[in-house]
Amino acid sequence: MTAVPQAPDAHDAPLGPVLVVGAGLVGASIGLALSHAGIRVYLTDRTRSHALVAAGLGAGEVGRPDADGVRLVVVAVPPDAAATVIRASLAAHPHAVVTDVASVKRRVRDQVRASGADLSRYVGSHPMAGSHRTGPLTASDELFVDRTWVVTAEPENPAWAVERVRRLATVCGARVIDMSAAAHDEAVAQVSHLPQLMSSLTAGHLRGVPEANLQLAGQGVRDVTRIAASDPVLWRQIVSANADAIRRELLGVRADLDDLLAGLDDPAALEAFIARGRDAARTLPGKHGQRSRDYEMVVVEIPDAPGALARLFADVDAAGVNVEDLAIEHDEVREVGYLSVSVSPSLAPGLRAAMDAAGWALRP
Amino acid sequence: MTAVPQAPDAHDAPLGPVLVVGAGLVGASIGLALSHAGIRVYLTDRTRSHALVAAGLGAGEVGRPDADGVRLVVVAVPPDAAATVIRASLAAHPHAVVTDVASVKRRVRDQVRASGADLSRYVGSHPMAGSHRTGPLTASDELFVDRTWVVTAEPENPAWAVERVRRLATVCGARVIDMSAAAHDEAVAQVSHLPQLMSSLTAGHLRGVPEANLQLAGQGVRDVTRIAASDPVLWRQIVSANADAIRRELLGVRADLDDLLAGLDDPAALEAFIARGRDAARTLPGKHGQRSRDYEMVVVEIPDAPGALARLFADVDAAGVNVEDLAIEHDEVREVGYLSVSVSPSLAPGLRAAMDAAGWALRP
Repeated sequence: MTAVPQAPDAHDAPLGPVLVVGAGLVGASIGLALSHAGIRVYLTDRTRSHALVAAGLGAGEVGRPDADGVRLVVVAVPPDAAATVIRASLAAHPHAVVTDVASVKRRVRDQVRASGADLSRYVGSHPMAGSHRTGPLTASDELFVDRTWVVTAEPENPAWAVERVRRLATVCGARVIDMSAAAHDEAVAQVSHLPQLMSSLTAGHLRGVPEANLQLAGQGVRDVTRIAASDPVLWRQIVSANADAIRRELLGVRADLDDLLAGLDDPAALEAFIARGRDAARTLPGKHGQRSRDYEMVVVEIPDAPGALARLFADVDAAGVNVEDLAIEHDEVREVGYLSVSVSPSLAPGLRAAMDAAGWALRP
Repeated sequence: MTAVPQAPDAHDAPLGPVLVVGAGLVGASIGLALSHAGIRVYLTDRTRSHALVAAGLGAGEVGRPDADGVRLVVVAVPPDAAATVIRASLAAHPHAVVTDVASVKRRVRDQVRASGADLSRYVGSHPMAGSHRTGPLTASDELFVDRTWVVTAEPENPAWAVERVRRLATVCGARVIDMSAAAHDEAVAQVSHLPQLMSSLTAGHLRGVPEANLQLAGQGVRDVTRIAASDPVLWRQIVSANADAIRRELLGVRADLDDLLAGLDDPAALEAFIARGRDAARTLPGKHGQRSRDYEMVVVEIPDAPGALARLFADVDAAGVNVEDLAIEHDEVREVGYLSVSVSPSLAPGLRAAMDAAGWALRP
């Protein structure tokens, strides 16, 4: 089957009708987001009750439309099944662009190519959202809002086909990042697959812990092991499909672990290890892909009199500026403390004037 | 200095006045909780501005009361400083019970004993709450609500002294667990210190990740590395004080990591590894220290008609029962799906009757 040549989409061409194959959490959530944007969505699932439930939640209608009527097929099935469904979708819908949402991109593309299919209408993608929960019952039309959606276009993809997949991502509220399949797979090995296996490793170690000791589990261990609760079949498929890149990361971690063990009785080495982790954790971009903004600090001397500090807090509140952060600083020589109030640079002069007018001692 | 004999507290004896030494997150939060319960609290901190800010937030008053007037001293300083402050507090307040909140209990007690102090009025404790944030500005009177607070009484502690520390925990809203110092330290090595270091290990590995790849970081890696952002000085002190127990856990993890690496290309071994982590994560007790309750399932056939499922959801809602969980099940032979609605056993008969009356097909 060869691709049918198509003209680029007109600026206001409809994205749909869209066929979503696989009505699990991701497929049903895409269906909900598109349906709520007024786009016609058809849903199929090997397990019909999944499609029925997704449709019942408003994610589209169950069934396959006319072969020629579909403009976009979204293959939202487990990684091991993706290539087969992509190939079948390219054949069945000759005017459609086909994308998938699998968490690994290179092997899927290689498998589609090996099947002899024409790859020009297949544009891989990966919405970086999901959950340790599965199935359409947990779907949400907001699953992708402000999340990253990687589009792994290759040179053989015409621009109009890539653009259709990019529009899918933006209609779902996601932020598009363009990457090659190979670069994507390296990146997810580092920031997704490795942390997933570290969570499994930490959780698996709890097996040997007596039940009485588990009673002391707090929020920390719950955070670290939350994603370990994910589906083992899905994650076995993901890790297997990206094993070479993941092995490199695991070997790096093992070397770090050996260093930690060697330095466990050396306070300086131990503190450096913990500080490295803290510093690296801070390099993670914020929720919206931006590092924390630079704020300006207004620094007020902390008064040493009963009740005065409560008035200071009240005066900061009353200044009506949005306080981004508060911290306490010390002057070791003068033995006084300062309250450091972080605000947007544009608001700092106003806050400084208000605090000065109210009689507080400011540090320049 | 020997302990001054005391009579047991009367049933309605006041807990205070309480002296809190150290006005960081934990000390200030204890001050807030006690003050809001009407108990008189005094605050001191080596860094006076911390005590001033805690007092400004309502956590107590700055200063030391009469030596004889204090009934309870709470030492909320870093682990390395705890023993010295405990010993000084026992000497300065001869009628007070002294407790501390350090995350390791055996070494602190050994150090106090080695100083020659009488240990009968010292009762160790450990509130299992905290945060990667520090300082009194982040304090909350609800920090300990529904959290575990371990009280590590030893045979030399009279019952009235232990009871005073237990009351501190319960006034703060925590759930008391009694353990020996040694059992406590083994348990926190497993469920707190090991996960902390695994988070640091995972975060530290992000150092080598190119910035473009960090853009793909999702919620998973943020959860796993959240506690890595904690204070390196504090955690170096905790880990050093419990290094033997932690080494045992780390060696176990290294063995598991070697197994993972050896089985990375074996799908069955890989899936078993991930499944073990998932199963172990599920053994963590719920927020209130209880495993998830047993629910009864009401199983309704999923109707294969447009709009019918939306009516089914509406009818489940209208039945007015508290739905604990929803799941989809399949009957492979009959090729139909079922919606399984989990409710408290006492509510199941009513829901079943309501669904039956509304005409839905139930599975017995």
